[in-house]
Amino acid sequence: MSIELELLSEHRCFDGVQRFYKHDSSAIGLPMRFSVYIPPAALGDSAAKVPVLFYLAGLTCTEETFMTKGGAQQWAARHGIMLVAPDTSPRGANVPGEDEGWDFGTGAGFYLDATQAPWGTHYRMESYVVGELFGIVTGQLPGDASRTGIFGHSMGGHGALVLAQRHPDKFRSVSAFAPIASPTKCPWGHKAFSGYLGEDREQWAQYDASLLMEKSSRPFPGGILIDQGLADNFLAEQLYPEAFEAACEKAGQPLTLRRHEGYDHGYYFISTFMQDHMEFHAKQLK
Amino acid sequence: MSIELELLSEHRCFDGVQRFYKHDSSAIGLPMRFSVYIPPAALGDSAAKVPVLFYLAGLTCTEETFMTKGGAQQWAARHGIMLVAPDTSPRGANVPGEDEGWDFGTGAGFYLDATQAPWGTHYRMESYVVGELFGIVTGQLPGDASRTGIFGHSMGGHGALVLAQRHPDKFRSVSAFAPIASPTKCPWGHKAFSGYLGEDREQWAQYDASLLMEKSSRPFPGGILIDQGLADNFLAEQLYPEAFEAACEKAGQPLTLRRHEGYDHGYYFISTFMQDHMEFHAKQLK
Repeated sequence: MSIELELLSEHRCFDGVQRFYKHDSSAIGLPMRFSVYIPPAALGDSAAKVPVLFYLAGLTCTEETFMTKGGAQQWAARHGIMLVAPDTSPRGANVPGEDEGWDFGTGAGFYLDATQAPWGTHYRMESYVVGELFGIVTGQLPGDASRTGIFGHSMGGHGALVLAQRHPDKFRSVSAFAPIASPTKCPWGHKAFSGYLGEDREQWAQYDASLLMEKSSRPFPGGILIDQGLADNFLAEQLYPEAFEAACEKAGQPLTLRRHEGYDHGYYFISTFMQDHMEFHAKQLK
Repeated sequence: MSIELELLSEHRCFDGVQRFYKHDSSAIGLPMRFSVYIPPAALGDSAAKVPVLFYLAGLTCTEETFMTKGGAQQWAARHGIMLVAPDTSPRGANVPGEDEGWDFGTGAGFYLDATQAPWGTHYRMESYVVGELFGIVTGQLPGDASRTGIFGHSMGGHGALVLAQRHPDKFRSVSAFAPIASPTKCPWGHKAFSGYLGEDREQWAQYDASLLMEKSSRPFPGGILIDQGLADNFLAEQLYPEAFEAACEKAGQPLTLRRHEGYDHGYYFISTFMQDHMEFHAKQLK
């Protein structure tokens, strides 16, 4: 079944095309927007399906942030990879309180399916990304469902590490920039998980990348790549890469966690290491 | 005489640093902001002065636009070039009408010194960029005043082509993305020049890149590089690259004007050809 996609804008970029789409989402129950970069290899008459790389953005971002600030298209063009970036939450769900803080509700969907009323009706970003959007980009756009990777930043780094582990049938490669690597340990995670999932800590554990990794058995043989800036203001209180590192050690999961002197939490940091992440995924998705 | 610079923020980026500054501007008579990328070659104890490349942004932009969307830092780091981007107009001049349109007044300073009241008091972007800001980045920051280039986009492409010709002692290399190449021919230019310069067409000619070129004698022996998208919605009515092309032909000025099928007026276009522009300037500023 094909979903009607409204093309909001299209821009030629590094010989490929940068597109922004809007569609009625059945997973979310509201219109959703996403962006996609289609590399030159997937354009034209003789075009084949190409690998797909999902990028999940952080708190307050939209489907546009990564495409304007990340600097990834040049490498996606070179490696023949399609890039996909969803929005970071439903928009206009009209849930009381959704616009009160920047770290919960609008712009802060945390890439999970909420179980608590009133959030459970629309805040279903996991089903949206892994189900509906995955189906769109591999069914209606030239993405190859069998060669798909995922990465993200901060809240989206959490999303990438969690969704990759919860859906190993879908994602073959995973990496992250400054991820919220153990949300059950930090204020952002406590706030989001209490609101979306309630007080049952068993539920929380299902969306904590480090707790999931502790119980897994090397799901990513190609390794996991994480970059973390040491001048990141959120590092001490919110991110806990060391918890994920310990969990990978315990699980025997190969991990490259690089700590970078002087780099902070923003896109000047992310863009600096974008080439490495694109090459990391390209190698595994080829 | 040193000008007091307030460092608003600093971010490590490609082993260099991205900085945003604010200072009281004597040229403008108001506080101004600018951004600068300092490459790794200009940092550390043994650092030398490095070439400087000014970027002038287009209508509605700020000192931030180029640094977040242009993707130039990776090449500036590699070639050891400092990048500088001023804001696009004074802010808070409180001139009646300055916020009525997006193509005149705030965000639309056109890189000239206004002669008409009430604009003449603060709208003095030429003096600001070529005088005060040039002095700051080569005097207080590690820019080499003898190796300086300039480029820009749209209104900023106009600015680059005009300021380079009006100040050949200052700028050794010049290029542009989709410049307003003959503002005396287009609605944007008519509106801006009438407002800032009055109705004397002789004055207008002093700020029209094509008219200046017609009367010059090959000021840039290294050539001029211009990229123009053919799907640019402003091309037919506002830009007139063909006028600049004819003027260069007449003046014997070497010009590489590349017309790109399918590309529009935005930063997805600009970022695609950023590497070429950075290499063009690097070659001449080495």
